[in-house]
Amino acid sequence: MRKRQSNRRNRSDRPVRVAGSITQSAWSPVTYATPPTAFLSADAVEAIHDTALHILEEIGMKVLSTDARTRFKAAGFTVNDSTEMVRFDRQGIEQAIATAPSSFPLHARNPERNLEIGGNNAVFSATGGPVYCMDLENGRRRGTYDEMCNFIRLVQSLNILHQEGGGGFEALDLPAETRHLDLLYAQATLLDKNWMPWNIGARQTMDCLEMAAIMLETDLEGLREKPIFTGVINTNSPLQLDIPMAEGLITLAEYGQAAVITPFTLSGAMAPVTLAGALAQQHAEAMASIALTQIVRPGAPVVYGGFTSNVDMKTGSPAFGTPEYVQAAQASGQLARHLNLPFRSSNVTTANTSDAQAAYESMMSLWGAMSGGANLIMHAAGWLGGGLTASFEKLILDAEMLQMMAAYNKPMEVDREALAMDAVRDVGPAGHYFGTAHTLARYESAFYSPLVSNWDNFDAWQQAGSTTAEQRANTIWKQLLAEYEQPPIDPGLDEALRAYRDRRKIEIPGRTA
Amino acid sequence: MRKRQSNRRNRSDRPVRVAGSITQSAWSPVTYATPPTAFLSADAVEAIHDTALHILEEIGMKVLSTDARTRFKAAGFTVNDSTEMVRFDRQGIEQAIATAPSSFPLHARNPERNLEIGGNNAVFSATGGPVYCMDLENGRRRGTYDEMCNFIRLVQSLNILHQEGGGGFEALDLPAETRHLDLLYAQATLLDKNWMPWNIGARQTMDCLEMAAIMLETDLEGLREKPIFTGVINTNSPLQLDIPMAEGLITLAEYGQAAVITPFTLSGAMAPVTLAGALAQQHAEAMASIALTQIVRPGAPVVYGGFTSNVDMKTGSPAFGTPEYVQAAQASGQLARHLNLPFRSSNVTTANTSDAQAAYESMMSLWGAMSGGANLIMHAAGWLGGGLTASFEKLILDAEMLQMMAAYNKPMEVDREALAMDAVRDVGPAGHYFGTAHTLARYESAFYSPLVSNWDNFDAWQQAGSTTAEQRANTIWKQLLAEYEQPPIDPGLDEALRAYRDRRKIEIPGRTA
Repeated sequence: MRKRQSNRRNRSDRPVRVAGSITQSAWSPVTYATPPTAFLSADAVEAIHDTALHILEEIGMKVLSTDARTRFKAAGFTVNDSTEMVRFDRQGIEQAIATAPSSFPLHARNPERNLEIGGNNAVFSATGGPVYCMDLENGRRRGTYDEMCNFIRLVQSLNILHQEGGGGFEALDLPAETRHLDLLYAQATLLDKNWMPWNIGARQTMDCLEMAAIMLETDLEGLREKPIFTGVINTNSPLQLDIPMAEGLITLAEYGQAAVITPFTLSGAMAPVTLAGALAQQHAEAMASIALTQIVRPGAPVVYGGFTSNVDMKTGSPAFGTPEYVQAAQASGQLARHLNLPFRSSNVTTANTSDAQAAYESMMSLWGAMSGGANLIMHAAGWLGGGLTASFEKLILDAEMLQMMAAYNKPMEVDREALAMDAVRDVGPAGHYFGTAHTLARYESAFYSPLVSNWDNFDAWQQAGSTTAEQRANTIWKQLLAEYEQPPIDPGLDEALRAYRDRRKIEIPGRTA
Repeated sequence: MRKRQSNRRNRSDRPVRVAGSITQSAWSPVTYATPPTAFLSADAVEAIHDTALHILEEIGMKVLSTDARTRFKAAGFTVNDSTEMVRFDRQGIEQAIATAPSSFPLHARNPERNLEIGGNNAVFSATGGPVYCMDLENGRRRGTYDEMCNFIRLVQSLNILHQEGGGGFEALDLPAETRHLDLLYAQATLLDKNWMPWNIGARQTMDCLEMAAIMLETDLEGLREKPIFTGVINTNSPLQLDIPMAEGLITLAEYGQAAVITPFTLSGAMAPVTLAGALAQQHAEAMASIALTQIVRPGAPVVYGGFTSNVDMKTGSPAFGTPEYVQAAQASGQLARHLNLPFRSSNVTTANTSDAQAAYESMMSLWGAMSGGANLIMHAAGWLGGGLTASFEKLILDAEMLQMMAAYNKPMEVDREALAMDAVRDVGPAGHYFGTAHTLARYESAFYSPLVSNWDNFDAWQQAGSTTAEQRANTIWKQLLAEYEQPPIDPGLDEALRAYRDRRKIEIPGRTA
């Protein structure tokens, strides 16, 4: 079952050339080379933390789920069932959060693809959640299951992506009630990496857990000791936790899976127009929800998610990859570390096509996330148009940006050999380093090798068709798809996954053919 | 003479809307919000510095200029006139460098546009040096004087650019021998910002100084106390300083102007294939050249330039905006600060068109430069195709990226008002912040306002023509050009500049009509 294609599993630093054509980086964990940027002073972090505690103490959160309110009450917090408000004393909330681990493992079908969330690690997760899909030939459209499977195949093929993000986009040709089952089957069989569940509400989250247990050849009990899921839990900012999100959170925590608590605090809309205010509100919503995971199961893995950005004040729609987004990402990293928790950020853009804007906004987001020390970078590849679209070309362009960020984070060797005094002496003034022994011994793996970037001079580039990066990305994803090989899976396992999917499709009421 | 258009000179943080259409950031100095990233450990910095001193001590620099060698000899360094080699003892070189200032002012025709190079400041300088110009309609071509003047006009119009960079591209319709005089006249009259000279050799540098003196209504003596120039001096890596560069350096230093010492150390070609080795060589070449500025005139302003990047090992051509470039920029910043000197870096890309690659490579360079604490960022706007091309669209796209980086570096307010506890209480759970008093009082200037980025939703973007950022940049530069107003200049001053230009054109031999 674990027989592997050696060409996709190269663990060295040398770039991998797949089938003689596409060069990509080898699979590799990413560890930060430098400490995160402290955009805020320690006093400012403390002031935001303190304001968040004030918010929870004086105002509280509206918690629509009776189950969640009951659990908060049992934990000693002040619950008003008629207003559905829960208020939190600062000692209680800080105590509840304290049991959350600062890092935790995530399992994959292929144990060589297991991940560690936290510490100095960055995990790159592909986009998930967009409604539409898009490519250069067919433009933006409602995606099908076949197209979604192709997106998943590409995520499997791109070594730089550590985690699949939830299907890329929705398979809108499938019935809404059972769509998640088809996605789960695709994730469990087309990937051998870790993947994100589509967990809305308790029942859907249970389906995710059941199929993950089958895939890892364990049971729900075993899954508790073998976390596999980072499931996103959004608060309904400001200061509200709805029933499906609360149910999802409780189910994830019960089964030892990681909730990625992500307040949707757009400054100027669902949060104050000042970033400090938006961050205080984000921090309050995050702390209340993180506390709930620990009340359900002390020690349950949990991630502090920061998604604070600003709206375009002319239209009220969200803007991403903005300077404010970078500040918020760095500050959110500081707030997460203040709670000793892993930090989630994202690679986001408002651009509607894979042009220069998409690239510079993504780069702003990515630098913000990574200089902010993000441990889980969601939507790291493929996100377009403010998150309504998953783009096949953007997936490839983002993979290039991620590969560059990973390469940047490899430490520089500064030993006697690398300092190259002998080579400098040998070459001498006005000489040349091509062809020297020092160069020949190192040139094959000395530098980053690009995936999409064209480094030809103008004439060569023109003769080859004056392609844009978007056009080259189009060629690359098609070739990767043509070369995709499904990771081997035991036929019995495949059968068990299919059986669960099919049985649940019959059980789920209201489904249409 | 200093009558100003108030709409271009807004000093507040509020974005400036020029003539009802194009919104751009106001003119403003940029100060870093966070300390630079220390990519290398203190030990690694010391090891590179020490290797560089070894190189200078044991190998030395080949100095082709007799004048320069004579000056080095007089300063006590070991000169061999038959091999043209100069060797430097470590105490002597460190002593010579010590007189260079850690920061210095740069003057402009409009004193409100004066700059400070060093400290925590970043100065954005437009591209200069490319052979070709390029725009969306006409593609890449040899540029004319008229087109060059248009490029300069745009640099004047874009508030985010603190400094003009040397004409953008060459006016290839003008005779080579006197082309610099026409450029100087254009710079002195079309701009009221600081600009960079085109200084190759002593005589051309003198022309730059003479015309600058006229422009600042002073003389060569007065210019010594009023630095105006950052003139680029490239070493001929490895380890050589040629005659025109040495002459330019000596003339700049004699007249109290700043040489921007920039070794052209492409790792794998003119420098070792290992980055640490390339940096050691860069550092050696920089220290020797910086020492020469101080031998000529102790206290002369000087900038430590880092240009280390890697070559594409498949073709030998330079690659820019690579992960290695980012590491080298951050490390070079550390080496410059080790000498207590201002640091110059650049915004560079290998891309041949203003696409996603151009944007993500530029963003890599810019983040590298700015996280590396660069005080002077050359080619900050307009550079394309590895520096052979200046692009009108890239100029605008880069201006957007620079505006974003400047906005990111504005400190976040974290006081009682910004923390917004009262607003959070007023809005309450599941409320909305649009239209609240806290929002209304701040929304106009709360967030960064983009120049090129389109934040419309997909349908609105599609209805408006599905434009790319490159297409919008094309519209913007044409509109800026149509709205350009020449900064007022005293007619007598204009006449004096023209007279110098015309007289020198007659004096310079070998010119063709």
